[in-house]
Amino acid sequence: MDVFFLGTGAGIPAKLRNVSSMALKLLEERGSIWLFDCGEATQHQILHTSIKPRRIEKIFITHLHGDHIYGLPGLLSSRSFQGGDTEITLYGPKGLKEYVEVSLSVSGTYLKYPLKVVEIADGVIFEDPDFKVEARLLQHGIPSYGYRITEKDRPGSLLADKLTEAGVKPGPLYKRIKNGENIELEDGRILDARDFLGPAQKGRIITVLGDTRICDAAVELAADADLLIHEATFSQGEEKLAYDYFHSTTIQAAQVAQKANAQRLCLNHISSRYERSDWDMLVKESQIIFPNTDIAEDFKEIHIPLVKGDED
Amino acid sequence: MDVFFLGTGAGIPAKLRNVSSMALKLLEERGSIWLFDCGEATQHQILHTSIKPRRIEKIFITHLHGDHIYGLPGLLSSRSFQGGDTEITLYGPKGLKEYVEVSLSVSGTYLKYPLKVVEIADGVIFEDPDFKVEARLLQHGIPSYGYRITEKDRPGSLLADKLTEAGVKPGPLYKRIKNGENIELEDGRILDARDFLGPAQKGRIITVLGDTRICDAAVELAADADLLIHEATFSQGEEKLAYDYFHSTTIQAAQVAQKANAQRLCLNHISSRYERSDWDMLVKESQIIFPNTDIAEDFKEIHIPLVKGDED
Ligand SMILES: [Zn+2]
Ligand SMILES: [Zn+2]
Repeated sequence: MDVFFLGTGAGIPAKLRNVSSMALKLLEERGSIWLFDCGEATQHQILHTSIKPRRIEKIFITHLHGDHIYGLPGLLSSRSFQGGDTEITLYGPKGLKEYVEVSLSVSGTYLKYPLKVVEIADGVIFEDPDFKVEARLLQHGIPSYGYRITEKDRPGSLLADKLTEAGVKPGPLYKRIKNGENIELEDGRILDARDFLGPAQKGRIITVLGDTRICDAAVELAADADLLIHEATFSQGEEKLAYDYFHSTTIQAAQVAQKANAQRLCLNHISSRYERSDWDMLVKESQIIFPNTDIAEDFKEIHIPLVKGDED
Repeated sequence: MDVFFLGTGAGIPAKLRNVSSMALKLLEERGSIWLFDCGEATQHQILHTSIKPRRIEKIFITHLHGDHIYGLPGLLSSRSFQGGDTEITLYGPKGLKEYVEVSLSVSGTYLKYPLKVVEIADGVIFEDPDFKVEARLLQHGIPSYGYRITEKDRPGSLLADKLTEAGVKPGPLYKRIKNGENIELEDGRILDARDFLGPAQKGRIITVLGDTRICDAAVELAADADLLIHEATFSQGEEKLAYDYFHSTTIQAAQVAQKANAQRLCLNHISSRYERSDWDMLVKESQIIFPNTDIAEDFKEIHIPLVKGDED
């Protein structure tokens, strides 16, 4: 599981930072990639990476400002042109469907794969045996969502040696134990599944927020997250500006990460008013409150390691 | 007057060629820039040039395929964000207005300048004392237009010395002679304006075509043009492919330039199947029929010089 930033700027494209997009690479976990936002020229950024558009399975849009969606029609079209044939599901606020449909139909574009558009509200917007995605409304000028991506915990691996010792032969019982079920053997013995399983594998939690003022929903979405990606359009001291434009400052992002007990914070959506030489300062502002802070950069990748949970 | 290519590829963005856009720089002529097509990331390309978005006065869209329009909403929004406050007029096929309006409104974008959208048909679509633009339908899968931009001829400059010699004093008469009017002096003499004017300045003609099969409308639009920009999606020998996909080959573009008696041809809309090392071959194919052929490249500029007309 890796987070790969494709565009980390605010509002308009700049030479050093494109408008918003981030790829959550779930290649080992599900052989696919999820995109978060798709500003103009996201497909151009992808050209310079190893990301294959046909691998994109879901695109989550935080909000409909142009710098977060104007790359969608082009990405969807090119993916079809390049032979992508598996379904894509788009998630985002009301209006997303009209935007995509009009853009594709006016341009005479017929996708060779099924496209599903889900206009979301607060709550669980996707769940399968491995992942769950929840959305919450944040505070921005237009509806802007944050997403909490939860990888489900997996039971520990079967300790085959210990089972052999206990006289249990490979077969259906193994599967039941693997699923955490206690079982009764033919001789009457009852085996506690926990005795035959390695440490459970704790799932990871990634929180990706759209543009927002500092708010409680952000804290709730980021609770115990392995990584919180929070916008920090402005630096410390610009709280008034941030409030007026429905954005956050570096230290507000840090406050959210701290309150949420997140493991790691990555500042994102950086205004082009800050030059490369200012980026360190932005990080340091945040680190005073939340030491494990990093700043997003276009083409930067962050690996999210698995943490083995305690046995039992 | 200069033609500046911003995107010269076909269909999808590639590393060496972005999707379609071209700037006609009319900075000396009218202090403004006209864009032709606006594929995705045209504003990103502009970031690497001296072009100021606020200078853009008109945008002509040849057809609504995504690779020619998906950069419009972003360019229009950023121009506003960056303080552009003068009107822009968009010209293009029916559907353009809906596309632009939905893209801007869904994204909550309010432009700080007036935007006029003119959905065109064959004929003169713009005329003022200095320029005329005519549009003609070409042959593509969807309505695709070609544009003929005619700079009007200007009368020669006043030969002040000769007027002084003839005893005419600076004043209102000068203006009438400058406008080509013959005048009667108080002493009864009649002056032929042509005797007191330098050589007239012939206006330039630029022809910019959308995607098309080889067709007569292209020849008519390019008649005596100083520069014809013609698509050449495919190389010689791919005429079947070109026909099937409503495109042209290099030699078809050359045939149009020759038939039209154009001065110069620039091949455009080059498929990414042709690598940099193939470009020379494409030019050479065309030059067999039309020697003054060039190939468009992203960030290439072509100067269109004024040619002094003959006296009278
Ligand atoms: Zn934004
Ligand atoms: Zn095209």
